[in-house]
Amino acid sequence: MNDTLKTIMNRKSVRKFSDKTISPEDIKTILQAGMSGPSCVNSRCWSFVVVRDKDKLLQMADANVRYADPLRGAALGILVCGDLSRTEFFANAREFWAIDGAIAAQNMILAAESLGIGSCWLGTWPVEERVANQAALFDLPEHIVPHSVIALGYPADDVPPGPRPGRPEWDADRVHWETW
Amino acid sequence: MNDTLKTIMNRKSVRKFSDKTISPEDIKTILQAGMSGPSCVNSRCWSFVVVRDKDKLLQMADANVRYADPLRGAALGILVCGDLSRTEFFANAREFWAIDGAIAAQNMILAAESLGIGSCWLGTWPVEERVANQAALFDLPEHIVPHSVIALGYPADDVPPGPRPGRPEWDADRVHWETW
Repeated sequence: MNDTLKTIMNRKSVRKFSDKTISPEDIKTILQAGMSGPSCVNSRCWSFVVVRDKDKLLQMADANVRYADPLRGAALGILVCGDLSRTEFFANAREFWAIDGAIAAQNMILAAESLGIGSCWLGTWPVEERVANQAALFDLPEHIVPHSVIALGYPADDVPPGPRPGRPEWDADRVHWETW
Repeated sequence: MNDTLKTIMNRKSVRKFSDKTISPEDIKTILQAGMSGPSCVNSRCWSFVVVRDKDKLLQMADANVRYADPLRGAALGILVCGDLSRTEFFANAREFWAIDGAIAAQNMILAAESLGIGSCWLGTWPVEERVANQAALFDLPEHIVPHSVIALGYPADDVPPGPRPGRPEWDADRVHWETW
C-alpha cells in the first residue's frame, strides 16, 4: 500500500489534542491542499477563516452548538466557507459550491494526517442555526456561507496511533456492479 | 513534501484516457478509500455503482447531460449515491449525506491518483435533471440518490504527467486570519 493510501485508510477522527501548536509552514501546507481539489469549472469558490486564538476557538465551538467539543482543545480551527460571489460568473458553480467546500475540507484533513496532525470534521452547513451562528461570530459578508469547521491539532497522548480498530472497513453490500 | 501531499497537490482532472483497463484489485482499493472518509455519526450513508461496460458508460454520460464526455473514453465510471435509508436512525445524518458523498468521492480520486489512474469528477446532485436521469438509468430505489459520477482511467498518451501548469496555486486572498 502506498503512502497516500495509508494516509486515506488510516485516518480517523481525533477529538483530543495535545498542547503542541501547529507550525505556520504546516498551516500553509494544509490550506494549500484545500486549494488543490477540483471545483466546479475551477471556480475555487471557497474561503478559509483560520483561528488559533483560544477564546475564538471556544466561541466557534459554541456557535456550532453540538458535537463541537473537539474544537475546545484544538490548536487550530478552520472555518471552510463557500464564496457565492465566485459562482456568479460560472454556470452551475452555485449548485456545486457545497460539494467544492467538502472537497477542500477533506483535502485538508488528509494533508494534516500526512503531517501527523489529527482532525475532526464538525458539520455546519446545511444546519441553519450553525450557519447563522458562525456567520454572526465572524461577521461574514452575505456572499460568504459557513460550510464546515475542521478542528486540528496533534493527538493527545492517550489517542492510540494508527487506524480505528476494525478499519479500514469494507462494506461489500454498498458496492453494485454494472447495475443496481 | 511527503507522498500524500504530492498526490493532493499534483492531482488534476484527466479527461482523456488510454484503453488500459483498471485491475480488479485497484478498483477495490479505490472503493475502500471511498469508504474510509469521515461520515456524519459514522452513518456511512453511501452506495457505489461501478460500471466498466462501455455501452453503460455512454448511457451514464448521456444521463449526466453536459460536460460528461470524459466518461465516454473512461475505463471505469463510479456513480456515487447517497443512501437515505441509512440516515433515518441518526440525528443530522440526512442533512449531511451530500457532504459525506463528496468526501467519499474525493478519497477515491486521490486513491486513484496515487495508483497512476486519472479521474474527472462529473457533478450530478443537486441538478435535478441529472439526478433523475441517473436514477432512471440504474432503476435506483427511492432512498438511493445519485450524487456524483467519477470517470476513471489511465491518462491518454498526450496528457502530460504532473500537475496542471501553475499548480499548486496559492490564493492568499482566500485566507483570513482569526477574523474575516
